[in-house]
Amino acid sequence: MRNVVALVYKCSVFSKQFPIICSQFRLSHNHWGSNKLHRKIKIPNPQREIIMADPKVEEILAPLRALVKEQGDLVRKLKEEKAPEIDVKKAVAELKARKKVLEDKELSLAPAEELFDRAKMEDLIKRRFFYDQSFAIYGGITGQFDFGPMGCALKSNMIQLWRKYFILQEQMLEVDCSILTPEPVLKASGHVERFADLMTKDVKSGECFRLDHLIKAHLEKIKSEKNTTAELKAEIEDILVKLDGMTADQMSALMQRFQMKSPISGNDLTPPIEFNLMFNTQIGPSGLVKGFLRPETAQGIFVNFKRLLEFNQGRLPFAAAQIGNSFRNEISPRSGLLRVREFTMCEIEHFCDTKDHPKFESVKDTQMLFYSADSQEQGRPAEIMTIGDAVSKGIVNNETLGYFMARIHLYMLAVGIDPKKLRFRQHMGNEMAHYACDCWDAECLTSYGWVECVGCADRSAYDLTQHTKATGIRLAAEKKLPAPKQIEVVEPVPNKAAIGKEFKKDAKLINDGLAAMDSAALDDMQAKLDADGEYTLSTPGGEFKLTPKLVSVKKTQKTVHVEEIIPSVIEPSFGVGRILYSILEHNFKMREGDEQRTYFSLPATVAPMKCAVLPLSGNAEFQPFVRELSQGLIDADVSHKVDDSSGSIGRRYARTDELGVPYAITVDFDTIKEPHSVTLRERDSMGQVRLPLTDVPTVVRDLSNSKISWANVEEKYPKFEQQEAVKGAAA
Amino acid sequence: MRNVVALVYKCSVFSKQFPIICSQFRLSHNHWGSNKLHRKIKIPNPQREIIMADPKVEEILAPLRALVKEQGDLVRKLKEEKAPEIDVKKAVAELKARKKVLEDKELSLAPAEELFDRAKMEDLIKRRFFYDQSFAIYGGITGQFDFGPMGCALKSNMIQLWRKYFILQEQMLEVDCSILTPEPVLKASGHVERFADLMTKDVKSGECFRLDHLIKAHLEKIKSEKNTTAELKAEIEDILVKLDGMTADQMSALMQRFQMKSPISGNDLTPPIEFNLMFNTQIGPSGLVKGFLRPETAQGIFVNFKRLLEFNQGRLPFAAAQIGNSFRNEISPRSGLLRVREFTMCEIEHFCDTKDHPKFESVKDTQMLFYSADSQEQGRPAEIMTIGDAVSKGIVNNETLGYFMARIHLYMLAVGIDPKKLRFRQHMGNEMAHYACDCWDAECLTSYGWVECVGCADRSAYDLTQHTKATGIRLAAEKKLPAPKQIEVVEPVPNKAAIGKEFKKDAKLINDGLAAMDSAALDDMQAKLDADGEYTLSTPGGEFKLTPKLVSVKKTQKTVHVEEIIPSVIEPSFGVGRILYSILEHNFKMREGDEQRTYFSLPATVAPMKCAVLPLSGNAEFQPFVRELSQGLIDADVSHKVDDSSGSIGRRYARTDELGVPYAITVDFDTIKEPHSVTLRERDSMGQVRLPLTDVPTVVRDLSNSKISWANVEEKYPKFEQQEAVKGAAA
Repeated sequence: MRNVVALVYKCSVFSKQFPIICSQFRLSHNHWGSNKLHRKIKIPNPQREIIMADPKVEEILAPLRALVKEQGDLVRKLKEEKAPEIDVKKAVAELKARKKVLEDKELSLAPAEELFDRAKMEDLIKRRFFYDQSFAIYGGITGQFDFGPMGCALKSNMIQLWRKYFILQEQMLEVDCSILTPEPVLKASGHVERFADLMTKDVKSGECFRLDHLIKAHLEKIKSEKNTTAELKAEIEDILVKLDGMTADQMSALMQRFQMKSPISGNDLTPPIEFNLMFNTQIGPSGLVKGFLRPETAQGIFVNFKRLLEFNQGRLPFAAAQIGNSFRNEISPRSGLLRVREFTMCEIEHFCDTKDHPKFESVKDTQMLFYSADSQEQGRPAEIMTIGDAVSKGIVNNETLGYFMARIHLYMLAVGIDPKKLRFRQHMGNEMAHYACDCWDAECLTSYGWVECVGCADRSAYDLTQHTKATGIRLAAEKKLPAPKQIEVVEPVPNKAAIGKEFKKDAKLINDGLAAMDSAALDDMQAKLDADGEYTLSTPGGEFKLTPKLVSVKKTQKTVHVEEIIPSVIEPSFGVGRILYSILEHNFKMREGDEQRTYFSLPATVAPMKCAVLPLSGNAEFQPFVRELSQGLIDADVSHKVDDSSGSIGRRYARTDELGVPYAITVDFDTIKEPHSVTLRERDSMGQVRLPLTDVPTVVRDLSNSKISWANVEEKYPKFEQQEAVKGAAA
Repeated sequence: MRNVVALVYKCSVFSKQFPIICSQFRLSHNHWGSNKLHRKIKIPNPQREIIMADPKVEEILAPLRALVKEQGDLVRKLKEEKAPEIDVKKAVAELKARKKVLEDKELSLAPAEELFDRAKMEDLIKRRFFYDQSFAIYGGITGQFDFGPMGCALKSNMIQLWRKYFILQEQMLEVDCSILTPEPVLKASGHVERFADLMTKDVKSGECFRLDHLIKAHLEKIKSEKNTTAELKAEIEDILVKLDGMTADQMSALMQRFQMKSPISGNDLTPPIEFNLMFNTQIGPSGLVKGFLRPETAQGIFVNFKRLLEFNQGRLPFAAAQIGNSFRNEISPRSGLLRVREFTMCEIEHFCDTKDHPKFESVKDTQMLFYSADSQEQGRPAEIMTIGDAVSKGIVNNETLGYFMARIHLYMLAVGIDPKKLRFRQHMGNEMAHYACDCWDAECLTSYGWVECVGCADRSAYDLTQHTKATGIRLAAEKKLPAPKQIEVVEPVPNKAAIGKEFKKDAKLINDGLAAMDSAALDDMQAKLDADGEYTLSTPGGEFKLTPKLVSVKKTQKTVHVEEIIPSVIEPSFGVGRILYSILEHNFKMREGDEQRTYFSLPATVAPMKCAVLPLSGNAEFQPFVRELSQGLIDADVSHKVDDSSGSIGRRYARTDELGVPYAITVDFDTIKEPHSVTLRERDSMGQVRLPLTDVPTVVRDLSNSKISWANVEEKYPKFEQQEAVKGAAA
């Protein structure tokens, strides 16, 4: 159910990924990690296997690859033969299952690059308040998080860099639209009808469960039981494969047949309930205007299309972008920031009439990891190539899509995503919405598996068309033709007097109905009038029989200089929280030989603060220098923190490391002597230099803006040797 | 009704200001300005009257001032005498009415500085899509606005500067908390019970009216009718004065007595309905967890107090800040951005234990316009003085409050507020929430009158205390005492075995109840146990009789080194939309002698784009230079726009002026010659210089960051003479 919808509504970025069954919604206690065990998770290096494929590993994988390929070929064959939809669906589901087995095996066999301790990272995130559960003093709410000073600064820096990468560098039109959205808008977009998951409730406790997950868990349990017959096991396998495509009735039948009860209380369950994932409310005091919290920011751009086109002086292409919060009432939010009820998105809608891109040349040599639909169907691993090759080989549909994918890739690297843990996965034909011609997700590898962080879809003209239909306002651009063109204009010629006389108050309905007919409909009407002597017109107010006496159709030639175009839309859609989480995982480090000293190796551009100023001790003589440094940093717009708390310098370094602060400045007794100097320490290498106090603000600013590198600094200033002898966690 | 609540909930920034009666909520047509007449509004210069008070004007004002003073004195007297509350309220209402008459007269007599044409400005705002009504193609929603590229950039630049002024320079802890808020949080804050307006509905159409406004309009109409007796007129005046303090029942009686009907349809009206202004929804699928969209961002900070205090290593003072959207379901939104249902706030909560401020010295000479409670009560005009004087004279309560007021003042000037149209108005005693010790609003003078844009209140320990009460979690800081102190500890000593035996399963209730008692309650218990031989303990689970056999009270001496403090809170709260609107009004200009050429003289720091690049014509030879300039500007992080549309340079200048773009660069035939040079034009003076192409990015960047001034540029580079001969509006 959700799967289909998820893909239609670009929820690829936010769609289900983790098999969570029970709705944990209630004022729960303060547990938000889904895995609090102090257990290390092996994070494989997915590219190693590509670069230096181990023959032994390949030997194990070969049969699995063959199984995928076999099924992929079957799917293709069925599609070519235009086999019944249910057969295709079944084959696709089986293909996905085989693909999953292959991928899991690949990951498990890949040589581990490092051991990742999620509980340790989550502990740091909570302890230093990067983010934590909202309203925890009131028991907390699952799926909602508050960002503390460090998380908020990281997020805000990510967004600022996003603005620079996209709004500034691509000259996009940024908008900021309403969150509260009236129902008709989301009816047109399809969200009111289809943005739903099936669930079932415990009839006594009211506890809610996502239905597909509940059924899956129940059947898997039966399958794993000893006394289950081989026959039933096979049948269950078959059911599991089909589950994704099942209707509510089919799922209901399964619930009855297998007598499913609440896995928590053992109570009876309700029949399937379709649960719309939008939060609803009423706008205004009357209670009559139904509204929703937007489930995506995109619709705000589409409904403003005409204004934006006009702002762009009527010309295509142009891109609009929006940064803002969206809301989805998940049945069972979990996995920390990965599945939440309230989240920040950065969305771009690039409106265009052709798919080539003037700046494609500038990115064409960008090396990226592609996991194409074809590779997925054929059981092949993802492969590294340049975006230029991917487009020229037709793996990526067009230059514009390719350009955005490359820009996404570069942005992800800039904010600290490990390039080895970033891939672009193409949606397979059956995953794609019917109107999309290509769709790629930027996925990050985390301890939860591959997480979809950015979607990049070609949505064609779908949304503008839908809103045009709903409002009668044409959301289209005009394009000058290379040369004037003769076109045939087909128009209805109603005999208004006669219509008025015959239909009285319904005359308006009929005239409006005729005016709304397109040329195909008019041709059809003429044909019917000619053949049968009458035509039945359907209007919102009923059907009416028209005769040649009442209406005719006129065809004329007209010279036109412009043509009307409903532009195509390329939509890159970023899930900020998911990217942020991936950045934290990819940058969580432990000092060699001391597992208690953990830190975040965040790039300076997005690090919450750029530096810390540490007086060696509480000695009053240090204070004027600390103040001078702080003021100098403020003047240079460098965010920083003065840590004049007690505790050795080593402990305070450890604390700034935990916060991901890349540079630390120490004021010591040598600072007091002229010329005043301080030490500057780099977080990752722990290298230190001695430099004049007055140089510090500019040096740290330039380091933070990547204008200079740490190596440059080490070249220019003398090395400062001091041991960091502190063991254990930061105080 | 709202008045009281408004003040309690800092809605001073967002409270009622304009007498709007009818709920205009429906899918209305696209009218959002409340005054679409092409009528010029006189904007007086409020400070002139202070600086060069005209004796003739003073002659007219003197009797009005005297009337205010007389009433102000009466209010004081009544308060001193501790007169009945209703008498004080009545006197205060009369004081406000007299004050209003005086202020209106003052404004009408002040020499007009300029004529302001609101309709013309609104036309520009819509035409260039600074902002416009949301969902207009669906008919629109009142009280909701979408910011287009220019409005969005202006807003985002204002916020970026706010971050620099407050987060960076004041080293505040920025947080980003959830919008969806569960009911218990807003119960504790008082919003569930009291954040409401009274309304009445048309029984047939369902149209809603704000009750106080409806009654006021109805009575004023009667009062103005010829055949109304003098007696009734006097009575109505009395009622109008008391209206603000009336209960729902009293208002209901008025509705009946004067037979009030819907002013639109003439239909009957319902009795008063209390309408809570928060948008409600359900969180999670069960429908059982009631939630609201936050009506302010402040609560997110309060509920995170412990985490923030810990982040600050347990030390006071510190300030937390949040930038985000809040929502209020206004009964009748109007006046464009001034009364909306969805708005962005920037809020600061400064937690402190003393009210002196280490940086006060740095702002003490800031000249500001103060309209103190005393001046308001005594009929005196606002006065200019330094914040240092205002604090030392006791006009502003303390240094911390004064420091923030000065910082607010400086920020407002930096974003483009006209200092002559900015004043700080102190809440009068009766306006202030019971817990507040001082409260000032930064108000901007606009064509709607004085608009409250920033509130700056001393909230004392109210919020932390409320959340502590609701959750049982102590939101307090510990402060080291100057010297250890002996204190008396009073503890209950329950005989747990005996209690368990006597009360069985209720024993826990009793033990918890005893543990929660403070020392006063324990003293009381001991006294009752001594005197009566029993004590009745109230618990959430019922009352229980305790005897000396079951419990006693122990007093011991203890040495303590720290004391627990619930910090005071100073809260500056910025309404971004209102400031933005005021900036637009204060910077809306017409070229001398050409009223059609309007523009926004926005400061470069907040201007939506810093410059426009204009090739003289479509000549292909210009293109490489345009590209080079654009890339140079991107590299220098300078937002800009290339306008290579057809139209004369003059027309394109006019267009960039309309967008408030401060600088325009023209590429012309001289650019092609070596050394390549371009012209740079400044918007307000229309002065132009000729400078090397390669200098442009740095020069525009430094101009935009206020590192250099236009005068510096004119000194350095040769003047370029060219006439801008275009008349009329931009193309």
